[in-house]
Amino acid sequence: MMKPQCWVLRLGHRFVRDDRLTTHVGLVARAFGASGISIVGGEESVKASIDKVTERWGGPFTVELVEDWRTVIKRWKNEGGVVVHLTMYGIPVDEVIDEIRSADRKLLVIVGAEKVPKEVFYEADYNVAIGNQPHSEAAALAIFLDRLYRGEEFKTKFNNSKLRIMPSSRGKKVVSVEERIGGENEDRV
Amino acid sequence: MMKPQCWVLRLGHRFVRDDRLTTHVGLVARAFGASGISIVGGEESVKASIDKVTERWGGPFTVELVEDWRTVIKRWKNEGGVVVHLTMYGIPVDEVIDEIRSADRKLLVIVGAEKVPKEVFYEADYNVAIGNQPHSEAAALAIFLDRLYRGEEFKTKFNNSKLRIMPSSRGKKVVSVEERIGGENEDRV
Repeated sequence: MMKPQCWVLRLGHRFVRDDRLTTHVGLVARAFGASGISIVGGEESVKASIDKVTERWGGPFTVELVEDWRTVIKRWKNEGGVVVHLTMYGIPVDEVIDEIRSADRKLLVIVGAEKVPKEVFYEADYNVAIGNQPHSEAAALAIFLDRLYRGEEFKTKFNNSKLRIMPSSRGKKVVSVEERIGGENEDRV
Repeated sequence: MMKPQCWVLRLGHRFVRDDRLTTHVGLVARAFGASGISIVGGEESVKASIDKVTERWGGPFTVELVEDWRTVIKRWKNEGGVVVHLTMYGIPVDEVIDEIRSADRKLLVIVGAEKVPKEVFYEADYNVAIGNQPHSEAAALAIFLDRLYRGEEFKTKFNNSKLRIMPSSRGKKVVSVEERIGGENEDRV
């Protein structure tokens, strides 16, 4: 578990239209060290896509589909967590990340789509900008977690993975973990 | 213009299914300091979405739709550029970014979707991993450019922008650049 512990809340998912983007947001959350994601209004197929990655590449990582974002924020606050909302309108990440990290309280990181209710800006303890230009919530989440964990997130060890990559300058080198006892099974391009 | 100069090549776009993701990749390229993107097999609507952001939030940033990625790579190499391919199978970014940056040659950064032809792994001067876990090409591009430009990309000044954000701890504060002479037009939540 990376410190501080982090959970993602995905708002503003639009039926079908956003399914691949929301899947990417979930995969970024997992790959960059968050322990789970709550998706408001997401389809079962989105949860299934992310869960499938966790099953193959390891966890733990939890995906929950929720109806109401207010409940998630309330629960987080009741448990003493800090709420961070990523928005291009916020304070530059580099001005606040040290303060957020050093508080060492568990974090809820909210990422929205195009329209986020005003209320979210007021419920958040921090409205944080990953640059003040429009881009992508998947990218914003990645940069935020990378700053929070200072690049250490890439060293995360995932448990119960069936596949593991051996970094390679050319081609694909994948180790099937189940077969490692008898010798490495390398699928090289 | 940020140094080294950077251009993005988007591969593997699937008709309609990937339009929002490819748009996000283009917006990340612009927001994180690249000067343009070539999209293989992209729709006019994807180009229009990115161009619209450039028109409102400033440039320069160029979007071109292309049929053949080989031509783009060949052109780049003929002009003395370096080709970087972002892939989860590659060498960790933190091991190669200093070498890439210090070469100070213009860069072509290739981001693919799920299937990337083997040939790309061999055409690339560097196959670079943004972590060895599956996540998102939008996130991978953002982290790569952030490492390349050491966070300086957020200070980029865009030209001819109609809108500019004033960072704010609560709500939205947008300056309409055309009206700044007569006083700031602030759209506050």
